[in-house]
Amino acid sequence: MTHGILIDLSGTLHVGDCPLPGAVAAIRRLQRSGVPFRFVTNTSRKTRAMLHADLVRFGFDVPVGQLFTAPLAVRRYLEEKGLRPHLLVHPDLEAEFDGLCREEPNAVVIGFARHAFTYGAMNRAFRLLMNGAPLLATGRTRYFEGADGLELDTGPFLAALEYGAQVEATVLGKPSPEFFFGAVAELGCAPDGAVMVGDDAVSDVGAAVRAGLRGILVRTGKYRPGDEAKAGIRPEAVASDVAAALEMILKEA
Amino acid sequence: MTHGILIDLSGTLHVGDCPLPGAVAAIRRLQRSGVPFRFVTNTSRKTRAMLHADLVRFGFDVPVGQLFTAPLAVRRYLEEKGLRPHLLVHPDLEAEFDGLCREEPNAVVIGFARHAFTYGAMNRAFRLLMNGAPLLATGRTRYFEGADGLELDTGPFLAALEYGAQVEATVLGKPSPEFFFGAVAELGCAPDGAVMVGDDAVSDVGAAVRAGLRGILVRTGKYRPGDEAKAGIRPEAVASDVAAALEMILKEA
Repeated sequence: MTHGILIDLSGTLHVGDCPLPGAVAAIRRLQRSGVPFRFVTNTSRKTRAMLHADLVRFGFDVPVGQLFTAPLAVRRYLEEKGLRPHLLVHPDLEAEFDGLCREEPNAVVIGFARHAFTYGAMNRAFRLLMNGAPLLATGRTRYFEGADGLELDTGPFLAALEYGAQVEATVLGKPSPEFFFGAVAELGCAPDGAVMVGDDAVSDVGAAVRAGLRGILVRTGKYRPGDEAKAGIRPEAVASDVAAALEMILKEA
Repeated sequence: MTHGILIDLSGTLHVGDCPLPGAVAAIRRLQRSGVPFRFVTNTSRKTRAMLHADLVRFGFDVPVGQLFTAPLAVRRYLEEKGLRPHLLVHPDLEAEFDGLCREEPNAVVIGFARHAFTYGAMNRAFRLLMNGAPLLATGRTRYFEGADGLELDTGPFLAALEYGAQVEATVLGKPSPEFFFGAVAELGCAPDGAVMVGDDAVSDVGAAVRAGLRGILVRTGKYRPGDEAKAGIRPEAVASDVAAALEMILKEA
């Protein structure tokens, strides 16, 4: 029985600015079915509002609340543990943490930050870590393609703080199990009642299966023949695309 | 036979602002002996000119050219390999690299930098590394005591670039063998003709011995009873202080 569905964005629902064939109609059918779902993504370079605007532009007419991102996974973790974050993130991303108490912080949150990675900000985070604050991160991505060339992403600055304070971060983006636990909590079901649909055999499907979910791999986006046989990855099924995957799931549900 | 002597600064010649008893007179005797020597230090937080001014204030009347530091070791390495550096160092330290060609850089040098560790500067270094430039560093120190609390030193930012570009740095400060090779080259002798005198059983004495020099440990500064027995460290002798160590060496020379 399927009580909830998680669906990856890039490479699964769309590639670049183009929705994948049949994806818009498949999501419309999914909404009518009443089965709870979330769009899940590791991207911490855009706010949920920005991601939502993109999806609407591609033709996916879903509320912003259907989006589950790595920064939201961090927020849920902070809320659950009653932690007050010191944010080392891009100013645009601070809004994702609105409403949380940030006075006398007792946790460090590092995410996509670009020019907010100043020496002063790194030191403030470092001193909190040396006082025992836990280190939380949206991911360990090494770099991304910026407007005028490659740019350092979150991972290197996370490595700097881990080395400086000799601590290990809790990473709350995919492939962390906590990411999937946070997402299925939003669906209101247990991990084994949920299915993850994505194009990444390791970070989407393999990681979801390891967290106790079921996983369906789609042959779009970054999928390459043979991905489903990768060591340690056991997708429940491989579908030609997200439309076929959702049809399989809804038929069974 | 001893053809040259390397002497550590902090903990060996002085502690804080005070020269160690007998040290000033011992250095005066050493100068009269004509045996070549260098004062060696890993400190990259001060320029050679600043370190020299401190030494003169403590009563050590030696020319600045007698000082061999980690940034100078980097400079010698660049000269030897014909490399053009991109400098990620504190503006004060740039003078240590005066006269080197810095156009179209093909090597990245990272040292003590504080607020010069901006996101833009880190990216410029990262892009060069991704194009195959070697990464050179003055050290891997995690942090230091700043005016208003702990501050991140070179090590964490080095770790960031190593993780980002998936490269390993060549560290040219102690305990790197290259540091000692650079220093004995200045003395004009072979490693096995030189003696290192210092208070750090691992970074001074052990590392020098591993680089092929002889080593004398002094019981001042950070020395603690039993240091000479630390695994892998074979000091040739242990002396009560630098004056006693130099007396031993000059008697034999």
